[in-house]
Amino acid sequence: MSSKIISRAVIKRLPRYYRYLSELMEHNIVRISSKELSERMNVTASQIRQDFNNFGGFGQQGYGYNVEYLYSEIGKILGLERDHNVIIIGAGNVGKALINYPDFAKRGFIFTAIFDSDPNLVGRKIGNCLVKSVDELETYVKENEVEIAALTIPKSVAPEVAGNLVKWGVGAIWNFAPTDLNLPKNVIVENVHLAESLMRLSYRIKDSEK
Amino acid sequence: MSSKIISRAVIKRLPRYYRYLSELMEHNIVRISSKELSERMNVTASQIRQDFNNFGGFGQQGYGYNVEYLYSEIGKILGLERDHNVIIIGAGNVGKALINYPDFAKRGFIFTAIFDSDPNLVGRKIGNCLVKSVDELETYVKENEVEIAALTIPKSVAPEVAGNLVKWGVGAIWNFAPTDLNLPKNVIVENVHLAESLMRLSYRIKDSEK
Repeated sequence: MSSKIISRAVIKRLPRYYRYLSELMEHNIVRISSKELSERMNVTASQIRQDFNNFGGFGQQGYGYNVEYLYSEIGKILGLERDHNVIIIGAGNVGKALINYPDFAKRGFIFTAIFDSDPNLVGRKIGNCLVKSVDELETYVKENEVEIAALTIPKSVAPEVAGNLVKWGVGAIWNFAPTDLNLPKNVIVENVHLAESLMRLSYRIKDSEK
Repeated sequence: MSSKIISRAVIKRLPRYYRYLSELMEHNIVRISSKELSERMNVTASQIRQDFNNFGGFGQQGYGYNVEYLYSEIGKILGLERDHNVIIIGAGNVGKALINYPDFAKRGFIFTAIFDSDPNLVGRKIGNCLVKSVDELETYVKENEVEIAALTIPKSVAPEVAGNLVKWGVGAIWNFAPTDLNLPKNVIVENVHLAESLMRLSYRIKDSEK
């Protein structure tokens, strides 16, 4: 693999391509031109070709891309050719929503455990997992392969929990707490800040009223 | 207000500034220099000044920004100086999580109703709302002021429900369904595609292993 640096904007679009290709496959579409893909996705055809050229272009011939091949290649780029173990810290509504979301398992994200500090929740079954006490977190993380930890806990405790997870060996955090975690540079953090998304919506409503 | 076009990247950063300023206020910090703000937020000071210059610069003087003033001005830009009514379609875990999320009400996003098609959920209380039947949705939207509809329903039904909401007068959709909605250009759509966020995380894990 070349060590070419791919821009954040391209990386942001890759999962969207992947999702579209998966929908095409569900509809038994075998081949698609960049023009058709562009019309469906509302991205220009030249943008698509430019994005794909970052990865060698995926061998488009005169009559378009092979959908299954393109899906499989983009999947490999996204690291989806193997499973990823995910634990969830926080068995509230967001934690429950994640565990029950059908799309994640399909993409190879396997929720292996969920933890909470509330003794009333410990032992309950959510999806296929029994809620464990956070007291067991350190041992669990050290004894099992945990690639990703999803943090669905209040912002008051998120930085400390994240710091501990990293100390115990977790390398990637999917953060739903509305705060930044300030972890070492080598830790991979992907934030889902719902309040910020809602504020962008509000900005666009205001902007449209001008 | 000038009709200057503000870039998407700036708009993306504004809610983050707003969140940081709110945290500073919680800690009774009255004034902050762009240098200090930059260190806390991990953005360069020149980026901050450049972003703020889009809006006239917020009157930084030699000794920094007035936190409360800056918070209030950015709030106005984001349209947060007034409340927004939000309804939720889908009383599953994501819908429940949204209604119970403390930060939204604080920012003026008021959940006024939640709807579901499951008769077993209709009539149940979630947060301060009783779950209503989707059969009542059309009448509710036409008789009440609904600015934003959050869609927390499966992708198989999301485009149709979104199309109806728009037909009945809703102008902004906060979409959690893992699909694009293809609505008229004047409708404001903000997507929260969790699977895509997780795939970006997976990409970055793979990329870090090179």
